[in-house]
Amino acid sequence: MKVIQYSQQPETRFDNDQVKGVSGRVVIGKADGAANFCMRVFELEKGGFTPKHRHDWEHEIFFHAGRGQVWRSGSWVPVESGSVAFIPGDEEHQIRNAGEGKLTFICLIPAGAPEL
Amino acid sequence: MKVIQYSQQPETRFDNDQVKGVSGRVVIGKADGAANFCMRVFELEKGGFTPKHRHDWEHEIFFHAGRGQVWRSGSWVPVESGSVAFIPGDEEHQIRNAGEGKLTFICLIPAGAPEL
Repeated sequence: MKVIQYSQQPETRFDNDQVKGVSGRVVIGKADGAANFCMRVFELEKGGFTPKHRHDWEHEIFFHAGRGQVWRSGSWVPVESGSVAFIPGDEEHQIRNAGEGKLTFICLIPAGAPEL
Repeated sequence: MKVIQYSQQPETRFDNDQVKGVSGRVVIGKADGAANFCMRVFELEKGGFTPKHRHDWEHEIFFHAGRGQVWRSGSWVPVESGSVAFIPGDEEHQIRNAGEGKLTFICLIPAGAPEL
């Protein structure tokens, strides 16, 4: 059994034209023996956003802290601590920080998808 | 795409000899079209605990709020907001609230295991 604080896991920073102010961590993945699905934790700085994209795997997301918005079918849906989002495969999506502080969420993907 | 606050989902209460002061919600599951894994949110009242048990499926857990402890190999490991636990299949485990307030965590399981 692995028990850690998510911040103990090494982070990968993403900053380019498509994604801004994003830090990602694989906290439970193949390296831990998780064969079926993978847990990542993302932190978005103020003004940060993930890429607007689609792919054939789903996301199961829980918003831990902060205030954000999720792109759904052409408009932005507000989310905050305690919000849950299920993004089916092949559906366009993007997440952005809409608050003054950090937006933190966990995002799970099935095995086979890239872990980060 | 489903976006909700977890508290909007109906809760199931558990209170017996094995499990005390526990509320569980399936927030993303088969009913939403989630074919690979299932997200539940649990709240433990002060003094509450989940059953001490084992089963052949794994848990991927993120602690959202409160202070708790996880039973691992014969002793209690402290957890709090931001802690992550990976419990492989067939490993004995239990979670208890060790704080004054509510302990809230999300717990994911693979498809095929009982959703709640």
